[in-house]
Amino acid sequence: MSDTQHRLATRLAALFQRLAESQVDAYLVLSSDAHLNEYGPIYQRRRAAITGFTGSAGGALLCPEGSHLFVDSRYYLQADQEVDPAYFRVHKLGMEGAHTLTGWLTEMERQRGSLRVGFDPFSTSTEAHTSYVKALKNAGSALVPITPNLVDAVWEDCPAPPAQPIYSLPDEVTGRSVADKLTAIRAEMAKAGADALILTKLDEIAWVTNLRGSDVSHNPVFEAYLVIEREQATCFTRVAPPAEVQQALASQITFQAYHAYPEAVQRLGATPELTVWLDAAGTTMGTRLLLAETQRLHAARNPVVLMKAVKNTAEVAAMRNAHLHAAAAKIRSLARLERQLAVGQRVSELAYSEMLHEEYSSEAGFRDLSFTTIAAAGPNGAIVHYSQASPDVELRHGELFLVDSGVQVLGGTTDDTRTVSIGTPTERQRRLYTLVLRCHIALARQKFPEGTSGVVLDGLARASMWNAGLDYGHGTGHGVGAFLNVHEGPQRIGPRGSDEPLQPGMVVSNEPGYYEEGWGGIRLENLYVVVPDDDMPPHPSGKRWLQLETLTLIPFDERLIDWSQLSDTERAWLVRYHQQVEETIGPLLNEDDRTWLREACTLPR
Amino acid sequence: MSDTQHRLATRLAALFQRLAESQVDAYLVLSSDAHLNEYGPIYQRRRAAITGFTGSAGGALLCPEGSHLFVDSRYYLQADQEVDPAYFRVHKLGMEGAHTLTGWLTEMERQRGSLRVGFDPFSTSTEAHTSYVKALKNAGSALVPITPNLVDAVWEDCPAPPAQPIYSLPDEVTGRSVADKLTAIRAEMAKAGADALILTKLDEIAWVTNLRGSDVSHNPVFEAYLVIEREQATCFTRVAPPAEVQQALASQITFQAYHAYPEAVQRLGATPELTVWLDAAGTTMGTRLLLAETQRLHAARNPVVLMKAVKNTAEVAAMRNAHLHAAAAKIRSLARLERQLAVGQRVSELAYSEMLHEEYSSEAGFRDLSFTTIAAAGPNGAIVHYSQASPDVELRHGELFLVDSGVQVLGGTTDDTRTVSIGTPTERQRRLYTLVLRCHIALARQKFPEGTSGVVLDGLARASMWNAGLDYGHGTGHGVGAFLNVHEGPQRIGPRGSDEPLQPGMVVSNEPGYYEEGWGGIRLENLYVVVPDDDMPPHPSGKRWLQLETLTLIPFDERLIDWSQLSDTERAWLVRYHQQVEETIGPLLNEDDRTWLREACTLPR
Repeated sequence: MSDTQHRLATRLAALFQRLAESQVDAYLVLSSDAHLNEYGPIYQRRRAAITGFTGSAGGALLCPEGSHLFVDSRYYLQADQEVDPAYFRVHKLGMEGAHTLTGWLTEMERQRGSLRVGFDPFSTSTEAHTSYVKALKNAGSALVPITPNLVDAVWEDCPAPPAQPIYSLPDEVTGRSVADKLTAIRAEMAKAGADALILTKLDEIAWVTNLRGSDVSHNPVFEAYLVIEREQATCFTRVAPPAEVQQALASQITFQAYHAYPEAVQRLGATPELTVWLDAAGTTMGTRLLLAETQRLHAARNPVVLMKAVKNTAEVAAMRNAHLHAAAAKIRSLARLERQLAVGQRVSELAYSEMLHEEYSSEAGFRDLSFTTIAAAGPNGAIVHYSQASPDVELRHGELFLVDSGVQVLGGTTDDTRTVSIGTPTERQRRLYTLVLRCHIALARQKFPEGTSGVVLDGLARASMWNAGLDYGHGTGHGVGAFLNVHEGPQRIGPRGSDEPLQPGMVVSNEPGYYEEGWGGIRLENLYVVVPDDDMPPHPSGKRWLQLETLTLIPFDERLIDWSQLSDTERAWLVRYHQQVEETIGPLLNEDDRTWLREACTLPR
Repeated sequence: MSDTQHRLATRLAALFQRLAESQVDAYLVLSSDAHLNEYGPIYQRRRAAITGFTGSAGGALLCPEGSHLFVDSRYYLQADQEVDPAYFRVHKLGMEGAHTLTGWLTEMERQRGSLRVGFDPFSTSTEAHTSYVKALKNAGSALVPITPNLVDAVWEDCPAPPAQPIYSLPDEVTGRSVADKLTAIRAEMAKAGADALILTKLDEIAWVTNLRGSDVSHNPVFEAYLVIEREQATCFTRVAPPAEVQQALASQITFQAYHAYPEAVQRLGATPELTVWLDAAGTTMGTRLLLAETQRLHAARNPVVLMKAVKNTAEVAAMRNAHLHAAAAKIRSLARLERQLAVGQRVSELAYSEMLHEEYSSEAGFRDLSFTTIAAAGPNGAIVHYSQASPDVELRHGELFLVDSGVQVLGGTTDDTRTVSIGTPTERQRRLYTLVLRCHIALARQKFPEGTSGVVLDGLARASMWNAGLDYGHGTGHGVGAFLNVHEGPQRIGPRGSDEPLQPGMVVSNEPGYYEEGWGGIRLENLYVVVPDDDMPPHPSGKRWLQLETLTLIPFDERLIDWSQLSDTERAWLVRYHQQVEETIGPLLNEDDRTWLREACTLPR
């Protein structure tokens, strides 16, 4: 038994002891955290601490008679490697006969007659809770909220919650003062008849307060709750913002300690005439249970979601600025890579990744990467979320190299993917690259009327690949925050769950791809901002025409483009795009890199 | 005051008298009927009988202090023409400040403090009822079910309910015996834990029973309810099917009189241990209220919806057969039209429409049109639902002529639209026609993986038109029944509400269009059946590849095709399609028509 296994076994034994004390048969440990972060701080990674499984998603059900872990296809292998089969049964979702967590709750209840399941309300979303409630059908069964979290009690070296400094952004960067934002939010509250709005998502709180932090890696957010009432707003933070920040916001927001939040919400809940606006999609049962049963709830999407997604002029300008820096740095890294390879230097995934980081860091305003760089050589390109650039995997002639990366630059967030040829590409590589590029261009040049949702655009991006018998297993595009999270809603472009109409000011990625196990991957990703196109003929129903305007300005690898596969309109788009890249980024580079860029932007015509 | 106005005024006065007796402030009269038919029998057209407004959609709220009619943009003009402003205020939905019916209920309640609204549960869908319940917020307000319908009592010359004969279809046409269908339905009921399934939609009842009727024009259905229990099934019909039909079904279905339905459902409702499956989307409050409050309801889409939509081999064969007849007849009508025009004969919309009907009627197995033929010359082509072919509107040289038509042939239902040039077309006509044709072809030749829903395909059909600044205000495609309703769900291809994945065996239309007021319209519609394409390379996730296979075999007007606008793949599709038309339909025609078809199928190449 390894040390790790031994430590986990000890934790489990201690936890089961507590289950007995709490009179529950089983205990849920989910991957979600108190703010339903996509990526959370380490102290919230309780599922990993008790199971050993470190994947980003997957719930566990702990039970003295045998525990269970539920993982999707991304994590079949990793889960088998990381968890101890002596304690855990791994359920592989999507495999024939595999149970989901909710399915298993039903099954366990059936076997035992009834089932009492403990859970931590502060790490369980209201949506997940609803599905567990539905899963248990017997009157003797129950979901039992247990606070504080039982894993914390047995996690002997649990890290402390983050407490990084909070800083404020100038209005020139955010484009809108906190006072303005609160006025707009309160107008929506008045329309909905809500007296209070509770915000629990960190990016929403950062957006409303024009504050940022670094409690989560790559996402410039800070752990907090925000309660907006008609006359006041209270922000509950781990660390108090600096005095000058507090002073500047004094007429708008009062700051209190993070741990004062539950009591404050309970007080709201104890005032029966108040209507509280709670967005189920962003809230844990922790907050829900603090509100009295009799509380009037306005359960609807909170108004910040759309306000944040629709970028104002200053935000778009900051996004553009961030993309200039990101493009200059990435172009330099690709030029350096080519020079290194040209002189026979060996370059590993990690070496390139570090070189790119170095170039990014040298840009003015650089704060952080916006996510861990994916630098995937050869076959690793087929792993869509490959995030561990290796010092041992070298870029080899004849293979493709996929680089998905982005930065946080004051005011803006970037995310782009380029796939480049190491040495001379094969015909097959060129054919497939060009096919993916055609999908990218189809979406990039598409005009569409206002009201069009992302799902309607997903098919037209995939059309060329589908007709060639190919497809990619991810959405075509996601929303991106402005100096916030690299994934944000409500808009997305995908075959399901993408009903939000695209609006001017929204930022979306366009990232079709091709993946083949053992061979590699191609992904071509730009970010675009949705803009009106008022030069179009009038729409028959008077709708405004929209289109995508690129933020990303990095050339595609012309060696991989099979010009003969492209239509005239596709060629014209590409020529114009490369012109724009050269004209915009060229002046930001030194002569050597500018020359490299000029050649990279030259197309066969 | 005209006779009609006088008659309506008398009816209204009598109705208001009854409102007082029923102690309600207002009375809802909707366009929906007892079976939520898209097109219902005449005796159910109560909204027209009491308001004078004959449009297909639009609810009325009758009130002694002033009545209200709510219409959408299709009916702004018609409503103004048909209703008496002395009694009715017309609310034009979509106009600035216009109230919806539900919005107006809220407003009236606000003005009066509270509001008691009477309604006929048997002509109010459960979904509409839910929205009215939400609209009334005051505890003193109520929605009051009133049976029988109050309009019927004041509608002095209300026609009798239809009582057309019911006939059965042979299993060779339906492809599945009633016994088989009931077994499959009961398997779904068992899975859902339902003891009884109530069907109220006429096409679903016709499908399950393999019976047809003609109570609704163009839809071969009969007024009925069907209650399927674990051991028995009871069909409540206006007229008893012939003895031999009843005998053949005796072991499967018992027939009872239509008016015995409420009591039978009430009996079910009085058995508290039974779970009843009721599909809200297809049911009126009439049925819902017959079930006791305490009744266990399984509220979910009923299993017949998907069984009916996914055609079996025999149904697809019958659909194909119907389309051969429809194509031969329509081709003959177009050839005749061209000959008539060539000799200078004047042809009106109505004359063509009658000629087409004559050709359709001459086909073996012809039963009915599947909807009123749209024969729209010149500017009339811009009216999407133009259904009154005029004897006074002649086809004029230089204009386009749009013909949207279909038939019910034993076993199959057709629906196609062709737009033809009268005389030599202009360049603009050719450009726009070709653009619409490109949209048609884009969808017609698209491969897509199983699980793809119609909404994902809608955008790729529109892509070319959008990029040219054009759009059409209707969906790209709808489902079609097999010898049933020409519009059926759940699948459709449109920008909203089209989340149902397409499955092999589903039939959909593909009908992009272009409409310009005062100029005319272009619509190019074929029906397609979804089929697997197992010749494609394997899908990366192992999904099956699907595509559309044409049912409609009628040439496009080659005079209107601008060959230079088409890509090689589009040309290839068109050449193959015309070849298929000529090879398949040619042999069904006499020599003259065959020669005409050969020429019509010849493309510039």
